[in-house]
Order: sequence, then structure tokens, then C-alpha cells
Amino acid sequence: MPRWDAQAEERLRTAAIELFLELGYENVTVAQIAERAGLARRTFSRYFADKRDVLFADSDRLPEMLAEALSRADPVLTPFDALVTALADVGAMLGAQVAPLAVQRREVIARSPELQERGRTKFAAVAHALGTELIRRGTEPTTAALLADVGVAVFRTGFNRWVDHPNGAGLAVCLREAAADLTDVVTQH
Amino acid sequence: MPRWDAQAEERLRTAAIELFLELGYENVTVAQIAERAGLARRTFSRYFADKRDVLFADSDRLPEMLAEALSRADPVLTPFDALVTALADVGAMLGAQVAPLAVQRREVIARSPELQERGRTKFAAVAHALGTELIRRGTEPTTAALLADVGVAVFRTGFNRWVDHPNGAGLAVCLREAAADLTDVVTQH
Repeated sequence: MPRWDAQAEERLRTAAIELFLELGYENVTVAQIAERAGLARRTFSRYFADKRDVLFADSDRLPEMLAEALSRADPVLTPFDALVTALADVGAMLGAQVAPLAVQRREVIARSPELQERGRTKFAAVAHALGTELIRRGTEPTTAALLADVGVAVFRTGFNRWVDHPNGAGLAVCLREAAADLTDVVTQH
Repeated sequence: MPRWDAQAEERLRTAAIELFLELGYENVTVAQIAERAGLARRTFSRYFADKRDVLFADSDRLPEMLAEALSRADPVLTPFDALVTALADVGAMLGAQVAPLAVQRREVIARSPELQERGRTKFAAVAHALGTELIRRGTEPTTAALLADVGVAVFRTGFNRWVDHPNGAGLAVCLREAAADLTDVVTQH
């Protein structure tokens, strides 16, 4: 078994996203992706379960990462501050990882109802993980569910802003800014 | 063509939800629903497009209703206050309509991944409608998207609280309470 080759993984990812944008996600086969990357079909299978996995491998770990970051947040923090800290912590880890191709990836997802649905399912899992962890920290369940949904809204907003400005602030900063925007807009009189 | 019969519609709805809970949503046929209600198969088709429609007919109009309520909100209101006013307005209209069977309906949806997905798709449409209308009111697009997602979070929380307390406050009040909770939890220090 050859060892993990980050370059092969990157080539496959780039080839896949190029093809998704050229032909439409639904029309692309794994064989085409491997061919475009100049690699064997079975090499693809060493890095990705299927073509969806090319787009979601990083974010599939998001619920777990966020719950873990929330469990590490200082117990004296308010639930919202703990949530924002967790988002920023994960943003700092995730940013570098997902930065290449983030714009193209978002475009591929925006064009496919199937992928949008997958995205929604993923964010529902994120909200569930955040809500469970907030309850463990002592937040009342109804408020925990509300705050978990709000956490997802902040994540999506901060993430989109970060993708929109590839040479701007890092993902962690964008997430904190989105949280500050939320506080502003909700308390504005 | 016989005229619309609210009692027939109600009998079909009750029969459908009973069967969904007894047999599982996926296993129920339209023929079974009609039989349980003591009505003909073609009578079902006069009231509902398919079995999913029994659960979602009311909420399918939610995006349009909320956008319309938001467009009617006083232009001097802040975006968040306008949003909360729109939620409460729609809550006042929708509450009486969806109150019967609301607990059972939620249970049916909670048990079916397919229906949960449909629910998420519906809420994405709600967020889109709210975001579009907020932009029309002059809210900056990124903030509008954030606030639209927050509106969905408030709606879900208020709605669930209302379903949990069938003899408590009306839906409009529960939605306003959820919005107040959000403001509290986001500004707590």
C-alpha cells in the first residue's frame, strides 16, 4: 500500500472541482476525476469514499470539532461567549485546511440541489452537537436549541464572508465579526 | 364537483396522522388513509396532492406569509424588530390553523429522515424569503442573511415551545418570547 500522498489528494480535489463546475456535479464520474488528475481509479478510492466526499470530507468532522471546542471553553463564560469561542477555535483550525478552492466549492454546492440538501443535513448535525454540549454545560434545553441554531447562523455568515474576501481576515476573525454583528443587530434600537 | 368539506379534510388529516404514527410514515399509502377516514381514494386527491401534503400544506405558505408580513412592518422599526413583528403576525394567523394535531405532526416528522429533510428545505425557503425582504427594506445583504437564519431559529424555538404547552400562551406570544430569549442570551455578561 503506497503511503499517503498529499499531492495526489490535492490533484484529485482540484480535478473534481474543475469537472463539477464544467459539467455539473451530477454528471461527473469518479473515473473522469481520476483521469483528469492523471491517477488510477483505485487511487481515488484511497482518498475519498465517493465524489461527494471530495466536497464534504473536511466539514463532516465539524459537529464533533465544535462540540469538543465547546467542551473545552472556560466554564465561567456565558453560553453565547462559549459558543463564539468554540466557533473561533474551530475556525482557526479549519481555515488553512479549507482555504484552497473554497470559492469554487461553494459555487459547486450552490448549483446542486442535492448538495445543498447535504449541506443542510450537515448543519442540522452541527446544531444538534452544539445543543447537546450546551445542555451539558448547564444551559436550559430550549435556550440551548435556540443558541445552537444561532451558532450555525453565525458560522454560515462568518464562513461566507471569509470566502468572499480571500485576502482579508482569517476565518476565526470572520466568525467573531459575524457574532458581533448578530449582537449589534439584535440589540439595535 | 362536490363543494369543499372541512370535515372531510379534517377526517383525512386525522386518519393520516394516526396511521403515520402506527405504521411509520414511509409505510402508509393514500388508499389506507382514505379507507381509515371512510372516504373514497379520489376524495383524498381533492384535498391533498400526496401524503406529504397532509403534513406540509399549511407550512408550505410560510415563506410567502412571512415575507408579506415583513413587507407590512412599520419602516421605522429596526430590522430585528420588524422580523419579530412579522413572526408574531404570522403566528397569530397560523396558530389556530395548525393547533389541532400539532404534537402528533411533530412526532411523525421527528421519526422520518425524509420528512426532516423536507422540513429543512422548507426552513431554507423561509430564510431565503426573509432575507430577500430584509434586503428590500435596506438591510445590508450579509446582515440580512444572518438575521433571516436567526428568524428561522426564533420561529422553530417559539413554535416548539408552543407545541410543548398546548394550554399555554398562543403561538404569537411564544414567538415573541423566543425572540426575547435570544436577545437575553446574546447580551448576557
